[in-house]
Amino acid sequence: MRLYGYYRSTAAWRVRIALNLKGVRVEQRARHLRRGEQRTPDYMRLNPQGLVPTLEFDDGTALTQSLAICEWLDETHPAPPLLPDDALARAKIRAFALTVACDVHPVQNLKVLARLRSLNLPEDEVTAWARWAIQDGLKACAALLARASGPFCFGPAPTLADICLTPQLFNARRFGVDFAGLERLLEAEAACAALAAFADAAPERQPDAE
Amino acid sequence: MRLYGYYRSTAAWRVRIALNLKGVRVEQRARHLRRGEQRTPDYMRLNPQGLVPTLEFDDGTALTQSLAICEWLDETHPAPPLLPDDALARAKIRAFALTVACDVHPVQNLKVLARLRSLNLPEDEVTAWARWAIQDGLKACAALLARASGPFCFGPAPTLADICLTPQLFNARRFGVDFAGLERLLEAEAACAALAAFADAAPERQPDAE
Repeated sequence: MRLYGYYRSTAAWRVRIALNLKGVRVEQRARHLRRGEQRTPDYMRLNPQGLVPTLEFDDGTALTQSLAICEWLDETHPAPPLLPDDALARAKIRAFALTVACDVHPVQNLKVLARLRSLNLPEDEVTAWARWAIQDGLKACAALLARASGPFCFGPAPTLADICLTPQLFNARRFGVDFAGLERLLEAEAACAALAAFADAAPERQPDAE
Repeated sequence: MRLYGYYRSTAAWRVRIALNLKGVRVEQRARHLRRGEQRTPDYMRLNPQGLVPTLEFDDGTALTQSLAICEWLDETHPAPPLLPDDALARAKIRAFALTVACDVHPVQNLKVLARLRSLNLPEDEVTAWARWAIQDGLKACAALLARASGPFCFGPAPTLADICLTPQLFNARRFGVDFAGLERLLEAEAACAALAAFADAAPERQPDAE
């Protein structure tokens, strides 16, 4: 299997964590997002959105969308689980993951910020936009954990929620988010950082890191 | 169970379709998004994002995020299935659903468009932004169906993909998206429209429709 990604893409980063947790080795192929390598015709045949990540099988089958890839991994490589067995607990964890993956990340990704710049928005307002999207979402994420025990987002082991949280906190720091009230999220991040599966997935450890 | 929604929210609409397909009846409670009824302290205790939908159980448990609610419904009420048994087929359908739910809808929702207006963007550029986000995403969605048989998105019965598609096409029309090249999506929408589960979930049939 080949994983098309970019060292700093938080969506590709999620899949790297999930693959590491499952012990699945893949060949990494970088697509440099700032050079537009994700928009070439060849790549867009694999991923019609022109985004990373894409997981390509040896027979040419391509899976897109980080959460769909993580769920596929969890269904085909059940141990260790990314989601528990109980349906209600699964729904809570998925809601946390989707809060990041739907309502935070896409509103502050490279593509949206580039569109804002194309509207002649000054750079400080572009940064403020990203900070707004992340701050608002992470505040909700912290509230979603109000009744969940630590040290990870939902208990004693990492789940799909932690897989989404760690990369998003990296972006939060890039854009100067205020972490007051987000201590529970930082606690989960610290628990994750102690695991090789998370540490090895970090941007600076990727072959295409700059 | 109570479903907090808004007649024109495409995320709440997805859950209405899923509930109808499963034959699960709920009490509907409207939160008028343009009047800010989703940001009251009482409601935000149920949904810390201040968004719809929320599915609240009689014991006070609240589920948020439309796709998490749909997956919970599919796990607890298996017939008819919203996803097939095969892991690869599930991944393809989830990728389609997430393309809409992550990369289209949140970039053009009420909250983001309001933020654009607050930056003094003229109304025609706000509309062009929404059209851009939808057009780009739906083009990718059509490509994701290139090898899938109809009449629904993925074969002879509706899935999570159709649940996301129908409401997004409603928004596409609102913002004047060009449907050239999207014929396969319109075919799936027509197949859905013939089903009572979809027809009954339409905005104009909701108690809070204006």
